[in-house]
Amino acid sequence: MDTNTGAVGVIGFGVMGSHMARNLAAKGHRVLGYSRTPSKVIEQKIHGVSPCTLEELARSCSCVLLSVTDGRAVQSILFGDSAEGAEGLSTLLAPGSLVINTTTIAPSEAADFDHRLSARDIYCVDAPVTGGDVGARNATLTIMCGGHEEAINRALPFLHCIGSKIVRVGPPGFGQRMKAVNQVGVALGIVAMTEALVLAEQQGISPDVALDILQGGAAGSWAFSNYAPRLLSNDLKPGFSAAHMLKDLKIAATEMPKSQILPGTETALRLFEKLVQRGKELGNHALIEIYRDTQI
Amino acid sequence: MDTNTGAVGVIGFGVMGSHMARNLAAKGHRVLGYSRTPSKVIEQKIHGVSPCTLEELARSCSCVLLSVTDGRAVQSILFGDSAEGAEGLSTLLAPGSLVINTTTIAPSEAADFDHRLSARDIYCVDAPVTGGDVGARNATLTIMCGGHEEAINRALPFLHCIGSKIVRVGPPGFGQRMKAVNQVGVALGIVAMTEALVLAEQQGISPDVALDILQGGAAGSWAFSNYAPRLLSNDLKPGFSAAHMLKDLKIAATEMPKSQILPGTETALRLFEKLVQRGKELGNHALIEIYRDTQI
Repeated sequence: MDTNTGAVGVIGFGVMGSHMARNLAAKGHRVLGYSRTPSKVIEQKIHGVSPCTLEELARSCSCVLLSVTDGRAVQSILFGDSAEGAEGLSTLLAPGSLVINTTTIAPSEAADFDHRLSARDIYCVDAPVTGGDVGARNATLTIMCGGHEEAINRALPFLHCIGSKIVRVGPPGFGQRMKAVNQVGVALGIVAMTEALVLAEQQGISPDVALDILQGGAAGSWAFSNYAPRLLSNDLKPGFSAAHMLKDLKIAATEMPKSQILPGTETALRLFEKLVQRGKELGNHALIEIYRDTQI
Repeated sequence: MDTNTGAVGVIGFGVMGSHMARNLAAKGHRVLGYSRTPSKVIEQKIHGVSPCTLEELARSCSCVLLSVTDGRAVQSILFGDSAEGAEGLSTLLAPGSLVINTTTIAPSEAADFDHRLSARDIYCVDAPVTGGDVGARNATLTIMCGGHEEAINRALPFLHCIGSKIVRVGPPGFGQRMKAVNQVGVALGIVAMTEALVLAEQQGISPDVALDILQGGAAGSWAFSNYAPRLLSNDLKPGFSAAHMLKDLKIAATEMPKSQILPGTETALRLFEKLVQRGKELGNHALIEIYRDTQI
């Protein structure tokens, strides 16, 4: 595939994007990087990433991978920010190029972006990920792909550089739909862990005894195995931030057409809203903090 | 310990009690069995259990294990049922005997029963279990022990016949407190699994694709690994019944002193109430049924 011979552009150099860019470079790709905060790209020069402008990136790259904040940021990168008068990537890329968006956004936005890029003969894949900073560093992310078959085919060689499990979920937007489903499972798993540990604490049960029983039985979960030990050592830093979880839950709870109310998800959304309102830089596993207030 | 030399009495021959009785007999104990439905004990004769009356059982046994329905049933067995005018086990057992109650009841009931048995010099351990019918059959139950140290010491040889993980949680009632904590974790894990699968279904995502991603990542849980495959093959039978889960959640949500509301647990309680109202003999993993109604 000719897309594999050109340079790869990476846009967005948070924790996730930085690791993705380094792994693409480590697998032999020429990687050009762009961020609105250029210093973040310059930090990655030592790992083989070449800082450049958005125009340079679009001119040199037949594949561009996005890892930015949210749907508004993706929209601004792709289609221009009218407030700034800047041109968007979609007008700069050559026909036949490929855009891989790893940012978690609403499924409807993903489908809309695909539609607008297709009109310019640009391939598009929505490819949100799970596996956290550790998965991004070790290229063991799970990647949930939505897009037309040919677009996903073209994306595969790049996705295999950054993840170990690449799943075709469905047409454009379906990667994002699956990501929302996954975040419902993660958030409610955290609620389950949190309320069991809070109840144990309230009942005067040793947290170590409680955790030993909980994670060994039918209550067991990834959250108990991975988050609970951090809680018991009072480590509330992200990992994955509570603010990002809230953003993802809002997509799941309010931005997807649903034939049924999901009462657990609504409860989780309210709880994470309270956590984020505390205004600290907390991980999503820190939900236990709000149970220590007098009112929930 | 002299308690280990006498016969063991087992009261209650549901699925759990029957397996416990058989495992005690298989490990060399002489086992006497009593049930209000004598045919259930007679079925276990082939496995070395001798059917008898409550009076015979009390006369021969220095250790009695209870596996009945709920707190009211335990109360009736131990202290008599005034409606029937029957005598309770506590007046029939010799001083120095041991009562092991594996039935899940409220912690306050467990503490009260211990108090009343202690007044008659009878040792008492609350020993609710987790691990289901499979754990009961294979003697791999996890047993959560509440009681005075000497009572638990006396119970250990018997508990090791029916379970593989015996945990001292604390004084009388603390086994039941831990059981309630565990059930909160189990119930919310089922809510997490259910709402993720329901959302996937609503979004047109293949259940196999969704389950593959969910159980492989940060949403992963015992529920996804064990219950979800049953759901996908449309097997909604218990395992552990929805009615028992509702009973356990009511203990956790309404019968324990708590300094904080647990919003997820309250939501789970409402959902399991709706499931049990459907009146079918459903397993606790069948929660997905109520999401298929028009109103939740």
